[in-house]
Amino acid sequence: MDRVRAGRMRKRAFDDARVAAYGQRMTTQAPYELYYWPTIQGRGEPIRLAFEETGTPYVDVARKPEGEGGGTAAIMQFIKGDQPGLIPLAPPFLRHGELVIAQTANILQYLAPRLGLVPEDEASRVRANQLMLTIMDMIVETHDVHHPIGTSLYYDDQKDAAMRVAPLFLRERLPKFLGYFERLLSRDGHLVSPALSYVDLAAFQLIEGLRYAFPKSMFAFEPRVPLLSALHTHVAGRPRIAAYLASPRRVRFNERGIFRNYPELDVAPDPDVRF
Amino acid sequence: MDRVRAGRMRKRAFDDARVAAYGQRMTTQAPYELYYWPTIQGRGEPIRLAFEETGTPYVDVARKPEGEGGGTAAIMQFIKGDQPGLIPLAPPFLRHGELVIAQTANILQYLAPRLGLVPEDEASRVRANQLMLTIMDMIVETHDVHHPIGTSLYYDDQKDAAMRVAPLFLRERLPKFLGYFERLLSRDGHLVSPALSYVDLAAFQLIEGLRYAFPKSMFAFEPRVPLLSALHTHVAGRPRIAAYLASPRRVRFNERGIFRNYPELDVAPDPDVRF
Repeated sequence: MDRVRAGRMRKRAFDDARVAAYGQRMTTQAPYELYYWPTIQGRGEPIRLAFEETGTPYVDVARKPEGEGGGTAAIMQFIKGDQPGLIPLAPPFLRHGELVIAQTANILQYLAPRLGLVPEDEASRVRANQLMLTIMDMIVETHDVHHPIGTSLYYDDQKDAAMRVAPLFLRERLPKFLGYFERLLSRDGHLVSPALSYVDLAAFQLIEGLRYAFPKSMFAFEPRVPLLSALHTHVAGRPRIAAYLASPRRVRFNERGIFRNYPELDVAPDPDVRF
Repeated sequence: MDRVRAGRMRKRAFDDARVAAYGQRMTTQAPYELYYWPTIQGRGEPIRLAFEETGTPYVDVARKPEGEGGGTAAIMQFIKGDQPGLIPLAPPFLRHGELVIAQTANILQYLAPRLGLVPEDEASRVRANQLMLTIMDMIVETHDVHHPIGTSLYYDDQKDAAMRVAPLFLRERLPKFLGYFERLLSRDGHLVSPALSYVDLAAFQLIEGLRYAFPKSMFAFEPRVPLLSALHTHVAGRPRIAAYLASPRRVRFNERGIFRNYPELDVAPDPDVRF
């Protein structure tokens, strides 16, 4: 075999590898199918916000009637392993072509470059993922305020413990997390520069949820994080987000989700306490 | 050119492309500097295992004496923002050249392709990240068994609540998570095919920690997850891991970390209960 032919062969194999890799990425003719509990915002909402902000068509599968392949039955088929692809432990998960992807931060990391919600360079993506994971940590802690003993118990069966958790959460954890994001916003008002990213959308959702769950405490605390408040206002006013929030597609907050309004847990810290 | 040779040629070109891609990523000769609390395994250990398994030189900065730039003072400089790079909320974080990267799963996602601990293709990486995040969820839940009320309180001040959490955790959450990983291992004994990945190392660490924290319960439960037990045995026996575990570099388990041996919490479920 001559060198030219070997070179051509090598190039073709290289191109084949590239095309194969590209093909794996570009399943874009397939619809985006989101699977999440149909009656709560929860861990699914940051994903819905990413689709809505970018005007990306998606199917919120479990919100369709069971007769049309929706409902929680659609979710359970995947959990039980009755559908192809990697079995998820729990929703949310996204089906896109042959891929089934679980974990909110993982789904958003997959979607963001495709939706233009994160810069191209590795440093920005690493930063975005780090902050998204930190937001998810905060969301878990917020959930655990009302369910400190076990997710399988009713709130009323662990209310005594929840009332011990709440003041610690509001006095220590809330300022720690929100103060951290505030500090990072000082650069240019976005959590990942220079434009709006999926992390900003998730931060908006975190503030939304905290305001719903702890209105008195957030009223007292938010003046300490003005940049984060401003980011919330900015996201809420973006045309597609504003339209989404006013639409029936936005599930209302309720006492079945992560952010629950139990007034007895909203023990606003003393305003003289330095956060 | 015969088919065997063409195939070999194609493989070599493909390997060349991989090496080229690797070169593009390797923008720095900088050392890998890990920052994590020096006296516990905690969320830093899956990262240490990745370095150790691959024989990759790294500096475990905070384990050096303060006089040599180590100790927790080294960590605090970053948390306070006295060092360049993205400020971390908490350790572990990795400094590599100009990048400062926090969050265990994020650090490992950054390291794994560089260390050869994850396949190249996107589907495998998405899978690896999903499973790593699920392991981290389990690690948080395991921590919260002994600290259900607040991280700022001593164990003794929340022992009553912990004793309510433990049986629920052992009866419901442990089988849910470990049963999930067991199911995924049925393909070929690795959590991400076809070779050992960073997720397998993290799963090993999870089993290690659970055995330390809940020896009676794990003794009763592990026969239900034989593939996961076998993965643990396999990882423990890999030469570099075995050498690491026997070395003073491996911090010993203790009652300051995530996995704590409090016998009163190790309430082995009834062996007749079907997990």
